[in-house]
Amino acid sequence: MSRHEPGTEPIAEAQPPTELAPAIPLEEVGRIAERVQELIAAGDPREAWQRLNQLHPADVGLILAGLPRTSSEALLQHMNPVEASRLGARLSIQTLSFVLDQVNPRHALTALQRLPIRRAQEVAEQLEQPIAESELLSQDPNTAGALMTDRFVAVDADADIADLRTALEALQEDRGQLTYLYVLNPQGLPDGQISMVDLALAPADAAASSVAAPLTAVVSVDTPAQECARLRRHYNLTQLPVVEGNTLIGVVLPDALLGVTVEEDTRQMLQVANVPGERADGPMALSICTRLPWLTINLATTFLAAATISLFESTLTQLVVLAAFLPVVAGQGGIGGTQTLTLIVRAIALGELVGIRAKRLLVREATLGVIHGIWLGLLVAAIAIIWQGNYGLALVLGIAMMGNMLIAGTVGAGVPLLMRRVGIDPAVASAVVVTTFTDVFGFLLFLGIAQAAISLLV
Amino acid sequence: MSRHEPGTEPIAEAQPPTELAPAIPLEEVGRIAERVQELIAAGDPREAWQRLNQLHPADVGLILAGLPRTSSEALLQHMNPVEASRLGARLSIQTLSFVLDQVNPRHALTALQRLPIRRAQEVAEQLEQPIAESELLSQDPNTAGALMTDRFVAVDADADIADLRTALEALQEDRGQLTYLYVLNPQGLPDGQISMVDLALAPADAAASSVAAPLTAVVSVDTPAQECARLRRHYNLTQLPVVEGNTLIGVVLPDALLGVTVEEDTRQMLQVANVPGERADGPMALSICTRLPWLTINLATTFLAAATISLFESTLTQLVVLAAFLPVVAGQGGIGGTQTLTLIVRAIALGELVGIRAKRLLVREATLGVIHGIWLGLLVAAIAIIWQGNYGLALVLGIAMMGNMLIAGTVGAGVPLLMRRVGIDPAVASAVVVTTFTDVFGFLLFLGIAQAAISLLV
Repeated sequence: MSRHEPGTEPIAEAQPPTELAPAIPLEEVGRIAERVQELIAAGDPREAWQRLNQLHPADVGLILAGLPRTSSEALLQHMNPVEASRLGARLSIQTLSFVLDQVNPRHALTALQRLPIRRAQEVAEQLEQPIAESELLSQDPNTAGALMTDRFVAVDADADIADLRTALEALQEDRGQLTYLYVLNPQGLPDGQISMVDLALAPADAAASSVAAPLTAVVSVDTPAQECARLRRHYNLTQLPVVEGNTLIGVVLPDALLGVTVEEDTRQMLQVANVPGERADGPMALSICTRLPWLTINLATTFLAAATISLFESTLTQLVVLAAFLPVVAGQGGIGGTQTLTLIVRAIALGELVGIRAKRLLVREATLGVIHGIWLGLLVAAIAIIWQGNYGLALVLGIAMMGNMLIAGTVGAGVPLLMRRVGIDPAVASAVVVTTFTDVFGFLLFLGIAQAAISLLV
Repeated sequence: MSRHEPGTEPIAEAQPPTELAPAIPLEEVGRIAERVQELIAAGDPREAWQRLNQLHPADVGLILAGLPRTSSEALLQHMNPVEASRLGARLSIQTLSFVLDQVNPRHALTALQRLPIRRAQEVAEQLEQPIAESELLSQDPNTAGALMTDRFVAVDADADIADLRTALEALQEDRGQLTYLYVLNPQGLPDGQISMVDLALAPADAAASSVAAPLTAVVSVDTPAQECARLRRHYNLTQLPVVEGNTLIGVVLPDALLGVTVEEDTRQMLQVANVPGERADGPMALSICTRLPWLTINLATTFLAAATISLFESTLTQLVVLAAFLPVVAGQGGIGGTQTLTLIVRAIALGELVGIRAKRLLVREATLGVIHGIWLGLLVAAIAIIWQGNYGLALVLGIAMMGNMLIAGTVGAGVPLLMRRVGIDPAVASAVVVTTFTDVFGFLLFLGIAQAAISLLV
């Protein structure tokens, strides 16, 4: 689709306002989006663009992401590159490179880094502006190397504050997010840091080393992004210097660290539900490739549960009402196990669990399982008496419930702790393993006890 | 427990190193924690403290949190107040106030704000240092008012850069995290912001207003913390000015904004699993109060499922092997529904879903449900033929599976979108509602079709 169709004004020349528009509530973004969609449907993309152009770029990106593809491509001029990269998988290479040509190379690079490397390279080839730092594209995207920018300020120990100001000034708009400058040792490694606040207050002739403070953390170019996020959160760091061998080659800025935190939290939450790496508006094929394997694995585990039930076919024949209670014990175990699991997975991800707490947590969750099991066991027994009037069934249900809640607590805590110990991300398969345990043991306990006590039941 | 027991040195006099120790990997924290525990067990808390004292306060806090209470109380001198507040619920009021008396009042206040207000007030009463900003304790803890600090710099439009530097200098250590200073209009409201970088580079005699940039967002004292986090993420803001009426009364700093983001992500992930507001090491009573209501609600829904099954007792009597397949159709629906649900809840929380996308997402997820249903239906039918050799059963299972996956996709997307529309947090009850649907409809479809086609099965 050409941007210069007959009947539409060429809008490529429109310039974004130099001052960013103010923030607005999300509901208002929604209302404007509806209005924009109406205007496009009414054949007035120019008026639609006028509306969009008054918004903050972040809101423009959000609205474009919500429009059908044909509408959004007509309105692509001034997109926030971060939003552009989110849309990257759905936009054509031509459209995307057109958007990225409008922004400064560092932003374009950030956007490209969020695409799969192959696709990023295809887009980079189409760009009119050179991406000088194209070597960054070869960095592993989940490392400090891919998060960093190479626009930073570092000076030798004998520099003074005036030198630092000159170096900072030379960065132009790239200096906006910097919070620290560095003083290098004679080997070229960062030896101290100077905060922007201290720089603002220091006299011009002071030695840089006299206002420098020691560094809390230096990361290497291949430090995992997740570890960078942990350092940021745990040690309250706003900027991480990145070294390769004996050279300071970049810094990871606050926004990149926040981005990692949000992405990592998203990945983890989705991983527990077995939709890792998906986006609500991503391509359908990606969704299928992501979810179907987990659904298939889960099918295998439900057949394990089915096989467990089929062991007790003769018991079920004797008392078919048992079938109705099958989901009760197993289902409660699944919920209880998932509660424990989620809590532990999250605590591990936040770096809150050092090894010495593992055993204590296991005991804690098993104890909670017993307490919850007693309450739920009594409740379920009472319901069975009221509903079916069968005291034997009530006893069996109550005991099975207590047993399965104990298993749920133990397995819900034990599986993620064990996975961490052997070096697997606990978010990955814990949920499937835990619910398989609670299903199989739920059926085994309930039907097994029922079989043993069948004379009490019929 | 007294800190001056016979046989132990008084360690209260030990001073924290003025320079913060470097960051270390989490595994090393774990090893040191084990060693500290051994030393305390061997009756050498002084040596244990020597080890701890060489670490960054954040790591000291992490290790103290992992120690049994009696051990940690002996080692409480130099805790990071953020960690202290995490431990707050488990420490005695005396111990906590002792820790908070060692840190600067702003940090002590931050720590107090993370406690329940009542408990915070009890601790504040015990403090030796006055918490001058004690009025902040009356702020709703989930608003900008509770997140902000009242140490900021704002000057009138006719001030110059030298005035700004003087005001900044007067803040002393509280200036560390500031990234922006403000220029006020004649009414006293913030009119423009000056970044620390621009301040560092501006000549001393320049007018403050000449380097000021327009503000993207100003929040009021009662703006929800969640909205502050959204503004930070969506608009890339590092600092939010807070106004009450016509007065600038504080700023929300980057760390507070990150804290809200992490807390909000945790809350949401735990909420989906029905463990809202819990901590892995929190008090047992809190865990029980949090989880047991959800477990009980869930018990009610599993009895809905049980009642559904009991409608088909006569069919089950005719072919008891049907019971074995009960968890298969319902279980797959539950997993599929949760996948969809989690994706949508997360997208809503990240502010990625403006209204116009809702209908599209519903169609998308229903379509995915059909596609997944066809694959799983064929697979489950094939397994039924191989395992039971029953073609009729295979047909019933396959059809029920397709139907339930369609329901899972539709309900998994529809429930959170509907809850958002009526103004309820979709994370709260969505999971229970969705799995109830997939359970009940799973049993209804499978047993209903089996009953209708019973002549094909037996």
